[in-house]
Amino acid sequence: MAASTTSLTAAQALMGRAVAGAGQSPVHSDRVALSTGFGLSALAGRALKTSARQQQRAARPRRAQLVRAAAVETLKGTEASAPPALVEKSVNTIRFLAIDAVEKANSGHPGLPMGCAPMGHILYDEVMRYNPKNPYWFNRDRFVLSAGHGCMLQYALLHLAGYDSVQDEDLKSFRQWGSRTPGHPENFETPGVEVTTGPLGQGIANAVGLALAEKHLAARYNKPDSEIVDHYTYVILGDGCQMEGISNEVCSLAGHWGLGKLIAFYDDNHISIDGDTEIAFTEDVSARFDALGWHTIWVKNGNTGYDEIRAAIKEAKAVTDKPTLIKVTTTIGFGSPNKANSYSVHGSALGAKEVDATRQNLGWPYEPFHVPEDVKSHWSRHTPQGAALESEWNAKFAEYEKKYAEEAAELKSIISGEFPAGWDDALPKYTPESPADATRNLSQQCLNALAKVIPGFLGGSADLASSNMTLLKMFGDFQKATPEERNLRFGVREHGMGAICNGIALHSPGLVPYCATFFVFTDYMRAAIRISALSEAGVIYVMTHDSIGLGEDGPTHQPIEHLVSFRAMPNILMLRPADGNETAGAYKVAVLNRKRPSILALSRQKLPQLPGTSVEGVAKGGYIISDNSSGNKPDLILTSTGSELEIAAKAADELRKEGKTVRVVSLVSWELFDEQSDEYKESVFPSAVTARVSIEAGSTLGWEKFVGSKGKAIGIDRFGASAPAGRIYKEFGLSVENVIAVAKAL
Amino acid sequence: MAASTTSLTAAQALMGRAVAGAGQSPVHSDRVALSTGFGLSALAGRALKTSARQQQRAARPRRAQLVRAAAVETLKGTEASAPPALVEKSVNTIRFLAIDAVEKANSGHPGLPMGCAPMGHILYDEVMRYNPKNPYWFNRDRFVLSAGHGCMLQYALLHLAGYDSVQDEDLKSFRQWGSRTPGHPENFETPGVEVTTGPLGQGIANAVGLALAEKHLAARYNKPDSEIVDHYTYVILGDGCQMEGISNEVCSLAGHWGLGKLIAFYDDNHISIDGDTEIAFTEDVSARFDALGWHTIWVKNGNTGYDEIRAAIKEAKAVTDKPTLIKVTTTIGFGSPNKANSYSVHGSALGAKEVDATRQNLGWPYEPFHVPEDVKSHWSRHTPQGAALESEWNAKFAEYEKKYAEEAAELKSIISGEFPAGWDDALPKYTPESPADATRNLSQQCLNALAKVIPGFLGGSADLASSNMTLLKMFGDFQKATPEERNLRFGVREHGMGAICNGIALHSPGLVPYCATFFVFTDYMRAAIRISALSEAGVIYVMTHDSIGLGEDGPTHQPIEHLVSFRAMPNILMLRPADGNETAGAYKVAVLNRKRPSILALSRQKLPQLPGTSVEGVAKGGYIISDNSSGNKPDLILTSTGSELEIAAKAADELRKEGKTVRVVSLVSWELFDEQSDEYKESVFPSAVTARVSIEAGSTLGWEKFVGSKGKAIGIDRFGASAPAGRIYKEFGLSVENVIAVAKAL
Repeated sequence: MAASTTSLTAAQALMGRAVAGAGQSPVHSDRVALSTGFGLSALAGRALKTSARQQQRAARPRRAQLVRAAAVETLKGTEASAPPALVEKSVNTIRFLAIDAVEKANSGHPGLPMGCAPMGHILYDEVMRYNPKNPYWFNRDRFVLSAGHGCMLQYALLHLAGYDSVQDEDLKSFRQWGSRTPGHPENFETPGVEVTTGPLGQGIANAVGLALAEKHLAARYNKPDSEIVDHYTYVILGDGCQMEGISNEVCSLAGHWGLGKLIAFYDDNHISIDGDTEIAFTEDVSARFDALGWHTIWVKNGNTGYDEIRAAIKEAKAVTDKPTLIKVTTTIGFGSPNKANSYSVHGSALGAKEVDATRQNLGWPYEPFHVPEDVKSHWSRHTPQGAALESEWNAKFAEYEKKYAEEAAELKSIISGEFPAGWDDALPKYTPESPADATRNLSQQCLNALAKVIPGFLGGSADLASSNMTLLKMFGDFQKATPEERNLRFGVREHGMGAICNGIALHSPGLVPYCATFFVFTDYMRAAIRISALSEAGVIYVMTHDSIGLGEDGPTHQPIEHLVSFRAMPNILMLRPADGNETAGAYKVAVLNRKRPSILALSRQKLPQLPGTSVEGVAKGGYIISDNSSGNKPDLILTSTGSELEIAAKAADELRKEGKTVRVVSLVSWELFDEQSDEYKESVFPSAVTARVSIEAGSTLGWEKFVGSKGKAIGIDRFGASAPAGRIYKEFGLSVENVIAVAKAL
Repeated sequence: MAASTTSLTAAQALMGRAVAGAGQSPVHSDRVALSTGFGLSALAGRALKTSARQQQRAARPRRAQLVRAAAVETLKGTEASAPPALVEKSVNTIRFLAIDAVEKANSGHPGLPMGCAPMGHILYDEVMRYNPKNPYWFNRDRFVLSAGHGCMLQYALLHLAGYDSVQDEDLKSFRQWGSRTPGHPENFETPGVEVTTGPLGQGIANAVGLALAEKHLAARYNKPDSEIVDHYTYVILGDGCQMEGISNEVCSLAGHWGLGKLIAFYDDNHISIDGDTEIAFTEDVSARFDALGWHTIWVKNGNTGYDEIRAAIKEAKAVTDKPTLIKVTTTIGFGSPNKANSYSVHGSALGAKEVDATRQNLGWPYEPFHVPEDVKSHWSRHTPQGAALESEWNAKFAEYEKKYAEEAAELKSIISGEFPAGWDDALPKYTPESPADATRNLSQQCLNALAKVIPGFLGGSADLASSNMTLLKMFGDFQKATPEERNLRFGVREHGMGAICNGIALHSPGLVPYCATFFVFTDYMRAAIRISALSEAGVIYVMTHDSIGLGEDGPTHQPIEHLVSFRAMPNILMLRPADGNETAGAYKVAVLNRKRPSILALSRQKLPQLPGTSVEGVAKGGYIISDNSSGNKPDLILTSTGSELEIAAKAADELRKEGKTVRVVSLVSWELFDEQSDEYKESVFPSAVTARVSIEAGSTLGWEKFVGSKGKAIGIDRFGASAPAGRIYKEFGLSVENVIAVAKAL
């Protein structure tokens, strides 16, 4: 069989990337969506064979060593260090591309690129394996600039390396409307950028997710005779990232998990926006990382110590059971005679005079944006070398596929994001006779069903697995010694959890990470959730205990404003299912939306299976679950979500007994309902019917949209209380009686 | 002068506590508000004398030693350890009060109280200085249960110590509707509880804030002959708190600041909800704290090693330049023969059978909720001792006041929360002729004005002081060696910053902390902001760069959904001032609302001083800034907030030129407007006028409430973009032209 039909070509991988978002409402409307014929019939409807994988465990240690040896061997091929003078010239090219772009935009951050250019050069020119003409080649090394404000470093490197996404005109339109070089690295704007950074600490967390994905897939798919998954994850983070709590969370996990192929460069330049780090950051960072179980190295001269940097990377690679932190002491704004080593070079253009002085100082006679010919020529080898690396890997994959057809099919699904046909048939179905249950339990049924049919489905909870009901029963825990397993144990680290999942989701289109905590604790991880939405990472957020219905734990644990706060967030789906069918429907939506994350708000308390709910209804966001009127003109519309839909349904029953015509509408996702046609919306909420009551155990803000100025929203506009749930519902007026009373008053 | 008239009595301190919230919209409507005659005329209108304080610096080191010696001396008086058998009995009393209360509620967390009872006993019975009959005595030691789920530990201790807030019936109504013993510690429900915990990591951060407040006030007010401010802050935190990123943030700061009187007990029980901490938390915690600049001690037997615990506290107190972490290895659920040392004892009642088995095992023959007489009798001494401690301090304060009248007046203001009369006259005033300026700059004028007249005004930024414009120009930085200064340097630690400010605010009613970052990064600190709102901590959140108006930094830095997300949060004021007068008005509101935090959303970009804006208008939340109609019936109402009010005003001018009658309404705070009378609301938004257009650079969700179903909301329901601000405004339709076009279409 020819490699072109059995292996993943660049075009296919690109297609896989694109297909994952097909059919979705795009935020970034200029993105291309391609259709693909990349079939996965071998996978269709087949459950994964766990026992086979379990049998392989005994062989793991030896396999890991082999993988390592092979990787070092392969790497040598791309290590083609230029002569020292040319390295220096290349490094200065990077510096001046950054200086010039910031100067032209009169906006941006020149300091970091000037200081980190040496490590950047070594990474992209000497160490990393990538194919500039296919930024989505599966087995590429990943690079994350966690200190995202220094994005001109990455743009300069992508430009030199030959990525089509950052051409000369892109550098010149840095930070301008419609450019591919925005003010912080954005994966959805610039192919070659892996994740979206800028909010500090997110990038290092994403990198942990990328490294986790590699370790997991390597453990599942590598064979003694074929290390088909084998790449490093590199990250540069600064003092700002180090101060953020999220970075300690994820680095604690990275140490715990032993992510040996994660190599982090800590740009230790002693300067943050408010001045010397002495004013707020005097801890011993390396000692902290030692305590977190990392290997640590200190490069004392990050400005010109190229060999020190090279040796550190070599040492880091030799340590395979721990992630490595390379503290690289640099000078922010290196080369600027009057601004280096000061906060003034962090976030503003140098100014024409200082740019000239820096050109003088570094001996740089060229015009702005000039790349000297010898530098250009040196870097040009990455295009053929990258193509060769990928093609070599494709040949390897073809061999792999011949021997391991089943594993290859799974891996293809993960690489392409194309799921086995009929995967959604696996979702459980319910009738009104099915037993009442909490939606968190129904959610667990869905999670377990999906994990059986979607090879890249994995996730876990922030130390609440037994409350969030998120364990995949047929798998063990992803741990240092069992990385092939799929239950992730995040500990009490919600923020890190979300950002790690972003990294997993963005590693490969077919990886579908989910993560869980109590809904109220989305407050801890909101910055990561927002980055999911912005960076099109289709993470599934399993958020249980979604209201005062959790009862005794009290107001610190009871969400109030959270539903509306996410309804207002762009490109994310806030779903609040009411029962089994709606929970299954919510998961179907969540899995289909690979470029739009979903939040599922789920109940702690038992709920009945309601007549009229459906998977199809959920897909529309809002739909009629019952109605005894005709001609689209009921006397009253009751609308609700989640656990209160039961109250609405019961109130409707009572009112119907009294001869009223009442419609009950489930508004499980406002965002999806908003996307329906005007005709459909009118069929659900006819404008002639103004008697409308909503009931939801949360803030009433926003419900005016559905109940109108003549309707009434029943909800909670204060904090909750500590008491048994039933009592709180009653005290807060979330009851059938109150709905009836309010409806009658209209 | 008699002590009763010159010193702060219990009643006065209580009054001070209450008055801080007087006249505000209460969330917790059952709270009592008292009026007070406690005058502060000595302070009125007087600026603080900085130079005097600066001169005192040289004397500090010696003074600190004196303070320490005196404290140790005083402490001895209360160190009256019971005989070992009685200690054991007291510890078991604590354990069984927790067991019985959880059992009766059939809900709660018995494991922590059972394991931490020994350290709890030693703290409350042997170490801490407090007055149970005045929980608000200023100079009390502070205790924070950061692992808030274990609240029955604290309730049992407060009960034994003689606090009126936790009586027998309160223990029996644990976690019930209306009780004073909710499911997690809530300062607003239970006097004696200092802060609100439960969401993990918040408590340790609050404790850092409490210790900071002590160090700051001690540096400002202690004299070589009078250590008038002198208390410790104790905190118990568990594995969960340790995993949360926020705790690393604040512990890094505590180490940096050298908060020597902060003593943290780390309940090292190796169990979290999902099982043994081995599954997710294997870092070396003590080594990490060493790296953060803490003194660390390990008590290996926290279950019965009373003397080990006592020795550790002694050692911790001897280290005055570093905070101390005492890792106390305990057994969760100690005493339960079948459930100890397992997650099953963490968060559920033991069950009748296991309660019996535990009674057997610990030799506890008593009925539920029984406190043996000898235990009761031993603890009863705290009531007279506490009264004596306070009265001794009051006498000391009377002496202090005689010698240092000015300092005493300031300190009284801080203790009582009563500000110098006319403090608000210090706020700057503007006319339409005043120069255009960014509201972040106008905010800095307000901050500097307020710091001059309010002695307890202090704060800072998360490494963005020069962007948030938050520096107090007449003060230096609060640092280890200069704790009397008022500029706090939080580093890039937003979450920790918010929670530290909660601690500062709850230390004393007259401390008014503010903190700052970019508005979008409220996402990092939302959990702390919510606790401000819930726990009635009147923190002022100075949130600049409040829209796409920040321009080139792009969508990661541009808030969209943030305004509505805070409008929906209970008991917090979301204010978005449009110019100088509105900024001053927003600060007046923020300072007045000591039990309701405020968020000020401020512009990066320059804005004109608009005719018609006013401080008084802001207090109403929404008001008319201009109108050319009569009879409360304009053709059109344009409404807006913050930076877009200028656009609304300009569009109105244009439309008026065409003969329309147009009203412009500033809706600077939706919450305050909601609280106005229906008459007032009708006078601003007459129901007969349905032609309404809103414009705001954020999510349109919620604006239906003001523009109605026939109006139109102009806003941004997608992510932002990286480009110069003017271009983004234009591209997104936030322009005078678009407002006019939309208005005409209505």
